Amino acid sequence: MTIAVYPGTFDPITKGHLDIITRAARLFDKLIVGVYETPDKKLLFNTDERVDLIKQSTSHLPNVEVKRFKGLIVEFAKKVGGHTLVRGLRVGSDFEREFAMSLMNKTLSSDCELVCLMADLKYQFLSSSLLKEAASLGGYIDNLVPLPVAAALKEKFFSKVKS
Amino acid sequence: MTIAVYPGTFDPITKGHLDIITRAARLFDKLIVGVYETPDKKLLFNTDERVDLIKQSTSHLPNVEVKRFKGLIVEFAKKVGGHTLVRGLRVGSDFEREFAMSLMNKTLSSDCELVCLMADLKYQFLSSSLLKEAASLGGYIDNLVPLPVAAALKEKFFSKVKS
Amino acid sequence: MTIAVYPGTFDPITKGHLDIITRAARLFDKLIVGVYETPDKKLLFNTDERVDLIKQSTSHLPNVEVKRFKGLIVEFAKKVGGHTLVRGLRVGSDFEREFAMSLMNKTLSSDCELVCLMADLKYQFLSSSLLKEAASLGGYIDNLVPLPVAAALKEKFFSKVKS
Amino acid sequence: MTIAVYPGTFDPITKGHLDIITRAARLFDKLIVGVYETPDKKLLFNTDERVDLIKQSTSHLPNVEVKRFKGLIVEFAKKVGGHTLVRGLRVGSDFEREFAMSLMNKTLSSDCELVCLMADLKYQFLSSSLLKEAASLGGYIDNLVPLPVAAALKEKFFSKVKS
Amino acid sequence: MTIAVYPGTFDPITKGHLDIITRAARLFDKLIVGVYETPDKKLLFNTDERVDLIKQSTSHLPNVEVKRFKGLIVEFAKKVGGHTLVRGLRVGSDFEREFAMSLMNKTLSSDCELVCLMADLKYQFLSSSLLKEAASLGGYIDNLVPLPVAAALKEKFFSKVKS
Amino acid sequence: MTIAVYPGTFDPITKGHLDIITRAARLFDKLIVGVYETPDKKLLFNTDERVDLIKQSTSHLPNVEVKRFKGLIVEFAKKVGGHTLVRGLRVGSDFEREFAMSLMNKTLSSDCELVCLMADLKYQFLSSSLLKEAASLGGYIDNLVPLPVAAALKEKFFSKVKS
Repeated sequence: MTIAVYPGTFDPITKGHLDIITRAARLFDKLIVGVYETPDKKLLFNTDERVDLIKQSTSHLPNVEVKRFKGLIVEFAKKVGGHTLVRGLRVGSDFEREFAMSLMNKTLSSDCELVCLMADLKYQFLSSSLLKEAASLGGYIDNLVPLPVAAALKEKFFSKVKS
Repeated sequence: MTIAVYPGTFDPITKGHLDIITRAARLFDKLIVGVYETPDKKLLFNTDERVDLIKQSTSHLPNVEVKRFKGLIVEFAKKVGGHTLVRGLRVGSDFEREFAMSLMNKTLSSDCELVCLMADLKYQFLSSSLLKEAASLGGYIDNLVPLPVAAALKEKFFSKVKS
Repeated sequence: MTIAVYPGTFDPITKGHLDIITRAARLFDKLIVGVYETPDKKLLFNTDERVDLIKQSTSHLPNVEVKRFKGLIVEFAKKVGGHTLVRGLRVGSDFEREFAMSLMNKTLSSDCELVCLMADLKYQFLSSSLLKEAASLGGYIDNLVPLPVAAALKEKFFSKVKS
Repeated sequence: MTIAVYPGTFDPITKGHLDIITRAARLFDKLIVGVYETPDKKLLFNTDERVDLIKQSTSHLPNVEVKRFKGLIVEFAKKVGGHTLVRGLRVGSDFEREFAMSLMNKTLSSDCELVCLMADLKYQFLSSSLLKEAASLGGYIDNLVPLPVAAALKEKFFSKVKS
Repeated sequence: MTIAVYPGTFDPITKGHLDIITRAARLFDKLIVGVYETPDKKLLFNTDERVDLIKQSTSHLPNVEVKRFKGLIVEFAKKVGGHTLVRGLRVGSDFEREFAMSLMNKTLSSDCELVCLMADLKYQFLSSSLLKEAASLGGYIDNLVPLPVAAALKEKFFSKVKS
Repeated sequence: MTIAVYPGTFDPITKGHLDIITRAARLFDKLIVGVYETPDKKLLFNTDERVDLIKQSTSHLPNVEVKRFKGLIVEFAKKVGGHTLVRGLRVGSDFEREFAMSLMNKTLSSDCELVCLMADLKYQFLSSSLLKEAASLGGYIDNLVPLPVAAALKEKFFSKVKS
């Protein structure tokens, strides 16, 4: 059975991420979405919330599992039995960074394979950070995120006093 | 009457910005320079100072107006009656980000048009952040900024004890 | 009256070009589509055919005119009374080339202004050369070109024996 | 059974291609190397030779098959039962072009998936054209190509009078 | 005597930096490694530690000297008698930034020359920040840094409780 | 004595090339400009003419020599006693290609060093091909090339009937 891992911060999951998850789930027997437990970065959603939003958004995909992880991605992949990492590529600046991380991962674990899927045209411009910026300013972003995320963003930004 | 909006943080305005303003003011009946009121980023000049420096630097251009704004750029543009945003492009990394923001803006407001002008060759390397770095280290930057900005930078960096 | 020039080879005009023409026609009083008379490059359509296909595709736009030109773009622009050149930018490699040509044009004619519009998301991948390649191999390209062009491409590739 | 297609011109196959083939053959049940029958481009090796060199270089990989094809890649993939295309990405200019072709392919056949593998660090700089240039000038290229290709290149360039 | 300056933060020095130092030391009579005394950025090693690690790693290179500096690079270069700055280029995003800084430096000091060496293939992906990330997560990075740095990284990350 | 080689096609030499030659001649004891004898590409000037134009343009630089070469650049460098190749980098697309060639050269000759100088801001946009295009169309290019080249271009394009 081929197991692949799709790692990320997912703060929060967007329709761009969901598109990659859906397509990767077709390519592999099992896809594990690895949610990075990061206390360092200033995130909008904590790890529990991020995991929960992905679970709600992928509940219709039977071979997708959501797990949190700490430490090196390649160690996490090894632990869950996956040698293949999945990444979505968007046009622009992230190719070089993906490439550097891919090579760093190969150095750390030589049997690790990186599989890149090209982001769909309509999600090319969509990053979690741009999304949060638009949402925080009151932009209509419901068509860019899964339903539970749209609700969660409204709750975060407009149900309480913004700091 | 065609109204265009040139949005930015302008911390502070450089001769590169002024070149774009001058050229855009020739293309449109009225150009509104939109100064982003941002409390989040750590800026050198506050919004009042930034607006003031732009006003002093553009006082010879009769169809240029300077306004502060909060929130989405597309909403600001709508409010002031402009459907056209102006941006200056420099060679290098900012094209992809401009593109992403342009598409995000189209998603948020479909009738918004982005017009890009290529930065003049002699200002290609000039960003506000590189300028502030050079100025803070005592570099001679008078030929890179309008006169009032050169004075303001000296005041900021050398008239008081640096933190 | 502001006159702008949108120069190109248009071999043939695509929906991506048409989108730029439509949007530029809103920004300027008059838009002149300049069709480069090029005997050097191996083109699929001759100048008459290319001009004709653009005319058929833009007949609903009253302030758009189609003209052929030889020689320097900046000289052509001067002759027809336009100081502003329009270009569509697609993500990827063409920004640097546009930039070089823009600077060369400024060297040749200092009062020439280049205005860039970002290609619409759905035409980002669409170049005349990729289109011709797909069409020549029998791909369905009707949704990528104006109607008269779809017919013309079929005629070129399938109504006669291919060389 | 998952079938993937790795299309290309392979004029000739390099160790960079072979690395991608080896890794893709681990990811999928069957990998079909699709050799483009191209009479238009000026190639060094004809289709028979290119197919033969790949067959010799991949004979140790039981689930790899080599086939020639004409016309659209997506049509070829459909015919051989594969919905997944494999491409190797090298740092630099080819990402944008891959992206454009990927989107054109999606337009031509919506269920086509593109899987990209990052070229190994030591083959990042290796393209067939650079290789042929070096080989034609007498450079030592034996460590860059499979054994049969090294012999074939010598034969092409030095066993007969060069045209 | 030609003196060149190789400036940087070196937090910490990697084998990529060491490769550039070694090669630059062959090109010039004397190479001064300039270590930026930066109190602003959050660094892992303080200036003393960074200078010390470079000295230990370059003790076998007789014409290499290590010096700390504050303020403008071009002023530091002038003070130590060097008009030539050395930089290592890695594929990807840093070319544009190097270019901008190079032009800013030329503006600040017109007789300053920038000499760029291409990073060796095997260190292309290696940045101090990626290295620190991997080391902090327990990755094996001994082959990526000089010996004294490997020891220092372990000390930093695992001999005390991480904050 | 350090000898460096600056290789190229120089069809024809521009002020951008001359700037790189002038600056490289300051860095090295001797600079050999290597003119590629290429019968394959369609060039405007033949090898004799290209060598001659460089000689006329560099006669004031005592440590610059002009030589023609065939075959591998690294072999030519070895033959003339130079281990260092000089290249000028312009912003945009040529960095990746320079990088690939640099690595190919290292593979062919491990002791070859590539030294890159950043093109001066005012020659960033200037390539021989863009120059020839502008000159052939009658553009004023006298400020972009050394005097003898301006004359030679006029002779080529306007003293005889163009084909």
